[in-house]
Formats: sequence, C-alpha cells, structure tokens
Amino acid sequence: MPTVPQTVISTDAELVTLINVFTVAPERQAEVVAALDRTTKEFFATVPGFRSANVHASQDGTRVVNYAQWASAAQFQAMLRMPEARPHLAEIGALVEASDPRLYEVSSVHHRAAGQ
Amino acid sequence: MPTVPQTVISTDAELVTLINVFTVAPERQAEVVAALDRTTKEFFATVPGFRSANVHASQDGTRVVNYAQWASAAQFQAMLRMPEARPHLAEIGALVEASDPRLYEVSSVHHRAAGQ
Repeated sequence: MPTVPQTVISTDAELVTLINVFTVAPERQAEVVAALDRTTKEFFATVPGFRSANVHASQDGTRVVNYAQWASAAQFQAMLRMPEARPHLAEIGALVEASDPRLYEVSSVHHRAAGQ
Repeated sequence: MPTVPQTVISTDAELVTLINVFTVAPERQAEVVAALDRTTKEFFATVPGFRSANVHASQDGTRVVNYAQWASAAQFQAMLRMPEARPHLAEIGALVEASDPRLYEVSSVHHRAAGQ
C-alpha cells in the first residue's frame, strides 16, 4: 500500500522554509490550490534544492498557504531567476489577489507533554 | 539521547492547522519568538486539543509565523474563550503590529520524486 507523503518540521533540519500566504477570492480558492499542485508537479519539484511543498486552504476561503522547504535560500533564489519559472509564477500570480512569500527558519517546536 | 521533537504535515492527519502570521518590528522579532515559546509552554500546550506549535522567524525580521496543530476547530475555539487564555493572548498582542490567525486544512503534500 503506498503511503501518504509526510513532511517533517524540525529545528535541526538543514532546510530553509518558504511560507507564501496567498490572499484569494473564496470562489477561486480551489482553483489556486489546483494550480499550485499542477505547477509544483510540472516544475517546482524538478528544481535542484526543492524538498517539499505543502498546500493549505483556509476554512474561511480567503487564504491559501504554501509551506515549502528548500535545501538552501540560494537554490530557491536561483529558481526564481530561471526563465522556465516565469510562466508558472505568472499563472499563480494571475489567480490571486496578493502573495507574501518570505523565507523562514524554524525557531522552536512544541508538542503536548507526554501523558497530557 | 533525547531526540528533537518533530511535527508531521500530512493530508490524512485528523487535525486542524492554525497558521498565525504576525507582522513584527525587526527589533522585536526575537522577543515575539520568546513570548510565543513561553506562553505555549505555560498555557497553550496544557489545553485539551493542543497538538503542536511550530514557531518560525522570517529571515528579513518582519514576520513570525506560528504553525500550530489542534485536534479540532472546536477545541481551538474553546481555548480562545477560556479566561486563562486572555493574559497570554494579550501579551502576544502587545508585542506585534498585526496578526492574521486562520484555520486551515492540508490540501496536498508534494515531495521531490525519488532519484531526483
């Protein structure tokens, strides 16, 4: 049985995290998710340094968040300069009202204490 | 040797994801991260339904993102109504310029294809 892919968040992974918050019209939220899925499979996942993309849809319909992991900031930034990236970035850009892509480090991870 | 806690993102987890994007003054970013760590240990992690909190600091200094997991939206919303929550929420609110807390579902998880 194939297992569902899992992404791990940890403070000791050698990764940089791209969190891109897209503001979307609720009637377009599903289309934005589908476009992120398609462009990730067709392009982003083929780029050196890509590790994962995790697409989240807000329950209120107004946001889509891509929580993505790259091996390094340099590889993410090199991808943005690739001519092949342009149509994929433009496709997403045309569907959303705003985007807020930023690179992050994982500062801390808290879990429920054992037994609670 | 104690292991570092790890959080798993998966489309088949029975969880709701709270993503709270805080806009912060760069000179206060470290203070906001520390306050989230402290309030999570002291309060949020003790509340029924809490599963994890994952605090992220943007490299540009202007954002802190809390990527948190709860067993259900109802338990998260019940926490917000608890009188004990108020001082902790107020402490964070006083340190940040803006917050954008929303509940999300994980729509898709993409990983680099094997061998790439």
